Amino acid sequence: MKANAAVDSLRVNARYVEQVLAGFIAEETRRAGLKRVVVGLSGGLDSALAACLARRALGRDGVVAILMPYRMSHPSSLKDARHLARRLGIRAELFDITRMVDAYFESDPKAGRVRRGNKMARERMSILYDRSVAHEALVLGTSNKTELLLGYGTVHGDMASSINPLGDLYMTQVRQVAAHMKVPEPIRRKTPSADLWPAQTDEGELGFTYHQVDQLLYLLVDQRYTRSAVIEAGWPRALVGRVMRRVVRSQYKRRLPLIAKLSERTIGVDFRYPRDWGT
Amino acid sequence: MKANAAVDSLRVNARYVEQVLAGFIAEETRRAGLKRVVVGLSGGLDSALAACLARRALGRDGVVAILMPYRMSHPSSLKDARHLARRLGIRAELFDITRMVDAYFESDPKAGRVRRGNKMARERMSILYDRSVAHEALVLGTSNKTELLLGYGTVHGDMASSINPLGDLYMTQVRQVAAHMKVPEPIRRKTPSADLWPAQTDEGELGFTYHQVDQLLYLLVDQRYTRSAVIEAGWPRALVGRVMRRVVRSQYKRRLPLIAKLSERTIGVDFRYPRDWGT
Repeated sequence: MKANAAVDSLRVNARYVEQVLAGFIAEETRRAGLKRVVVGLSGGLDSALAACLARRALGRDGVVAILMPYRMSHPSSLKDARHLARRLGIRAELFDITRMVDAYFESDPKAGRVRRGNKMARERMSILYDRSVAHEALVLGTSNKTELLLGYGTVHGDMASSINPLGDLYMTQVRQVAAHMKVPEPIRRKTPSADLWPAQTDEGELGFTYHQVDQLLYLLVDQRYTRSAVIEAGWPRALVGRVMRRVVRSQYKRRLPLIAKLSERTIGVDFRYPRDWGT
Repeated sequence: MKANAAVDSLRVNARYVEQVLAGFIAEETRRAGLKRVVVGLSGGLDSALAACLARRALGRDGVVAILMPYRMSHPSSLKDARHLARRLGIRAELFDITRMVDAYFESDPKAGRVRRGNKMARERMSILYDRSVAHEALVLGTSNKTELLLGYGTVHGDMASSINPLGDLYMTQVRQVAAHMKVPEPIRRKTPSADLWPAQTDEGELGFTYHQVDQLLYLLVDQRYTRSAVIEAGWPRALVGRVMRRVVRSQYKRRLPLIAKLSERTIGVDFRYPRDWGT
């Protein structure tokens, strides 16, 4: 597999990225007329990096960490999240989501783990948005580019946010910036997982590694390689097909609700920029 | 107030609109590889019309109504929703959201009614998306153009859906199509309300009538009148200012999360149409 060009291209200047992303958070928060963000700290790498960036951008009073364990979350998740919040000197609030989620599934006890995982993700979104009102804050997104492209997340759940500093960084790049920003070792060393059921791992569920898929996505998306070009470059046909299908089929998660067009100015189509009204 | 031109322009050919919207629902459901939609029936006009359109597009097996009362919902809401489902011959499922919502607010009993209303709307969204998986269905949206433009709804709550047949119809136009489709009188006659707390009415909360604001929005949005042009046409300056500010300030509810741009192909900006990959 000749993918060396891609490997090099995924290397980022972490110092520069840190500056750009902290600037993005500071600027967008200010433009919204606010001074603060809330971020759901899961104990995982993405939310840890997002919190570090926000802490840098807005100071310790500018970030509130929301910890939302479920009864089946790994105990180390909460521990690592708490530890990070303490280290950053930011306020942390705890909301156990077990009762809200379990109350719903009493009506359908046979629901499988994917449906349960989505319900948890949406409960967390709902709490984050509520706390954002209580704190006069924006909701900080934590989905990275790999997850967003693969649709490996819950629409109106973890994929929902006001602003997302990580959405243009592949997982491999998130790791580089997290190392540069000294995200604690236990968080950087752990196997990526949505932590929605025991022993869940991203790579196990996806069927490929982030190292692999990031390189392939970079070629397909950023470099605009065609399917045949990546196959010619040595990528296994089956993997290419699987990844491309995931991107295409998850498109609905990356777009707004589709509105039936009737008028000459339809929301999301012809009517998008009311800021031109300058009120 | 010389708004006669606008009044006439808001008149729709209801028979034609019915055809277009039923066609939209049928086509988009088929394109998603599905045969069914779920719709949250609130007892209000928008969801009633959306259900009638879906029933026409997909037949009685193609629509599942989800009824999601809260303990403070008006009793007539559930009654009217049930009655409509029976009349359309579609399946109706009941999920009382009281326990899920109340369990959360035990941690913050002083939360006001707007925050409670948003939590309810997001709980309903979360249930609709879960039931859409259980039924292999799309989530049918029910927000009309007036609500969407004014931001009078909950982002990732009632504003979330897979496809929305009503998003390009002003409230006044929803009424016309609902009358044509013989939505039951009790639903058409009731005062518009989000039914999130007792005696809530849309017009009371907004501070203007739908009749007024639809005309004004039509001029500003569809006809691209400037602020001074509508004021010159006789519209009260204060009302114009209030409405325009609402549209501008609610822009964040009508767009995707803002992603910090780092690469040459950013999701939602340069990378939007993976269907061109033709997988």
